[in-house]
Amino acid sequence: MSRFFSSRYEQLTPYTPGEQPQDMAYTKLNTNESPFPPSEKALAYAAEHTKPLNLYSDPACRILTAKLAEVYGVTENMVLVTNGSDEALNFAFMSFCDEEHPALFPDITYGFYPVYADLNHVPYEEIPLTEDFSIDLEEYKKRKGTVFLANPNAPTGRALPAEAIEALVAADPDRVVVVDEAYVDFGAESCVPLVKKYDNVLVIQTYSKSRSLAGARLGYAVGCPELIADMNTIKFSTNPYNINSYSMAIGMGSLLDDAYNKANCRVIADNRTYTVGKLKELGFEVVDSKANFVFAKHPAISGQEIYEKLKANGVLVRHFTKERIKEYNRITIGTKEQMDVLFETFRKIWG
Amino acid sequence: MSRFFSSRYEQLTPYTPGEQPQDMAYTKLNTNESPFPPSEKALAYAAEHTKPLNLYSDPACRILTAKLAEVYGVTENMVLVTNGSDEALNFAFMSFCDEEHPALFPDITYGFYPVYADLNHVPYEEIPLTEDFSIDLEEYKKRKGTVFLANPNAPTGRALPAEAIEALVAADPDRVVVVDEAYVDFGAESCVPLVKKYDNVLVIQTYSKSRSLAGARLGYAVGCPELIADMNTIKFSTNPYNINSYSMAIGMGSLLDDAYNKANCRVIADNRTYTVGKLKELGFEVVDSKANFVFAKHPAISGQEIYEKLKANGVLVRHFTKERIKEYNRITIGTKEQMDVLFETFRKIWG
Repeated sequence: MSRFFSSRYEQLTPYTPGEQPQDMAYTKLNTNESPFPPSEKALAYAAEHTKPLNLYSDPACRILTAKLAEVYGVTENMVLVTNGSDEALNFAFMSFCDEEHPALFPDITYGFYPVYADLNHVPYEEIPLTEDFSIDLEEYKKRKGTVFLANPNAPTGRALPAEAIEALVAADPDRVVVVDEAYVDFGAESCVPLVKKYDNVLVIQTYSKSRSLAGARLGYAVGCPELIADMNTIKFSTNPYNINSYSMAIGMGSLLDDAYNKANCRVIADNRTYTVGKLKELGFEVVDSKANFVFAKHPAISGQEIYEKLKANGVLVRHFTKERIKEYNRITIGTKEQMDVLFETFRKIWG
Repeated sequence: MSRFFSSRYEQLTPYTPGEQPQDMAYTKLNTNESPFPPSEKALAYAAEHTKPLNLYSDPACRILTAKLAEVYGVTENMVLVTNGSDEALNFAFMSFCDEEHPALFPDITYGFYPVYADLNHVPYEEIPLTEDFSIDLEEYKKRKGTVFLANPNAPTGRALPAEAIEALVAADPDRVVVVDEAYVDFGAESCVPLVKKYDNVLVIQTYSKSRSLAGARLGYAVGCPELIADMNTIKFSTNPYNINSYSMAIGMGSLLDDAYNKANCRVIADNRTYTVGKLKELGFEVVDSKANFVFAKHPAISGQEIYEKLKANGVLVRHFTKERIKEYNRITIGTKEQMDVLFETFRKIWG
């Protein structure tokens, strides 16, 4: 830290992204990427339709915004495209949380939520998941504040039905509920339809998982026009040209071939079923997942040891040190072949 | 504005980017883009070297950071790559300004500085340019606070010698001086060498102008390791994967063919000389510019009228409504052919 760093941020602990080691080739099951390349048609579309790069990208991101609006059956002023869904989440913390509107989220969830709260000096309360890692929405209904729900939740993979989230949204029209649907396309129910009915729900999605475009950095928020206008005020005061022209084009191309993405999601869901079966055969306890990862612990081997020995043998999974979940690892669902490497490696180490 | 928007931001007036009208094809001299396409070699490099897009981009942006460090003769921990230089500017406002460290910048400069100050609730003082639109650094030396200097300045185009900025940096080791060098490659002196000598100067550059990559959204900050570490704390608390993999690759490719970019800068400088001569023939007063634009007013025609009538005739220039500069227009230097369209259009309208 320099002697110039503002005291506003000197206590800030940044988010730690999943490791991207360069020392060897790993079977990489640690950052929930898609094992499948982006659609060939999307790549070809981007090669042909990227606006000349010497010109600024469209700050209003009109073409992609209009297409997303069409896909979700909303109007264009109900969609905001962002530089990954992380940017949308930060804009939501900035727009809808403050001293009067603390943030509420589970104790076990996407680890960036408390960082965004700290970054923006927003008070927050972490509400414990139940014993089996479920979210008890009644606990949220008792409290005032802006709710952030990852659905499915990470790193557990558990999903809430849209109906339960709707009941939370409807229970208090004076609070915003932000639903982070990064993993929704692998088997959970989306809350996007709720944005047409309620002005206090914001849904955030991403191209990073189900559309195989983590490297393109594309996310978006869907909500009523007023919520999106608020986030646009933040965007145009922060980084008006937030999306580059290449990503805008491939984002469009990907939507034009969304059948490819949907087929990949079905394969991942099948591989998840296969993985859960195999993990149970190996003695693991596995949390019920609707995401492209599973959260698993072994009764006889510590979470830390599993993570370390798998890594030493070329398989990367994600381990968290938080007390409540330190016996677990989060394992991304890849191809069947990748999952078999995991199982063979496990057997090689632990017999 | 929704009823949920935080009172923190309800007074915020966002930045207005230069207009990007879709109604007709314009001779576009309003947003200081390069008229030349990106290097063919850079485009080919990006096509070949973009990391598979289903994987996350490198949050540390190692390859490009290392190359930029090599280009500028600094170590890798002295460079931070950002999603356009606007992101670097916001990170600098966040990191190095607060109630105790107000921001200081000219009354006439990049219009985003007061927006960043307001966004971050940072007090600021706008210090008037002198009569001829020069920056009087003595006025800054008298005051405490973090200084933001666009050099060359926008929209005036005037540049300060690096020596003068060094004197400001050296005069008070307890203040940070941020030098925004978006336009430096068109004829001004860079302050990058100062970062090796002083720990209180930060230089921000961009690929948007001299490298013909406005649409790729690439900027970077160069400073001592501690200043860059501070900005990384902000980055990893805001958007760790801030750069997409395609832009990382084309940013690298562009540096590998920087001779192409430098040759284009020389053409722009020649076209600037040509433009100034022609504008003077047409009766304009033109501010001395080291940038890829000129700032000009006509003694007989109002700035607003020039802007409007040129636009109606297919030529876009940038007009600002601020009282002190409302008789001026900022005119991007394009190809000689584009500039001739401007002059012919002017003659067609005003004879």
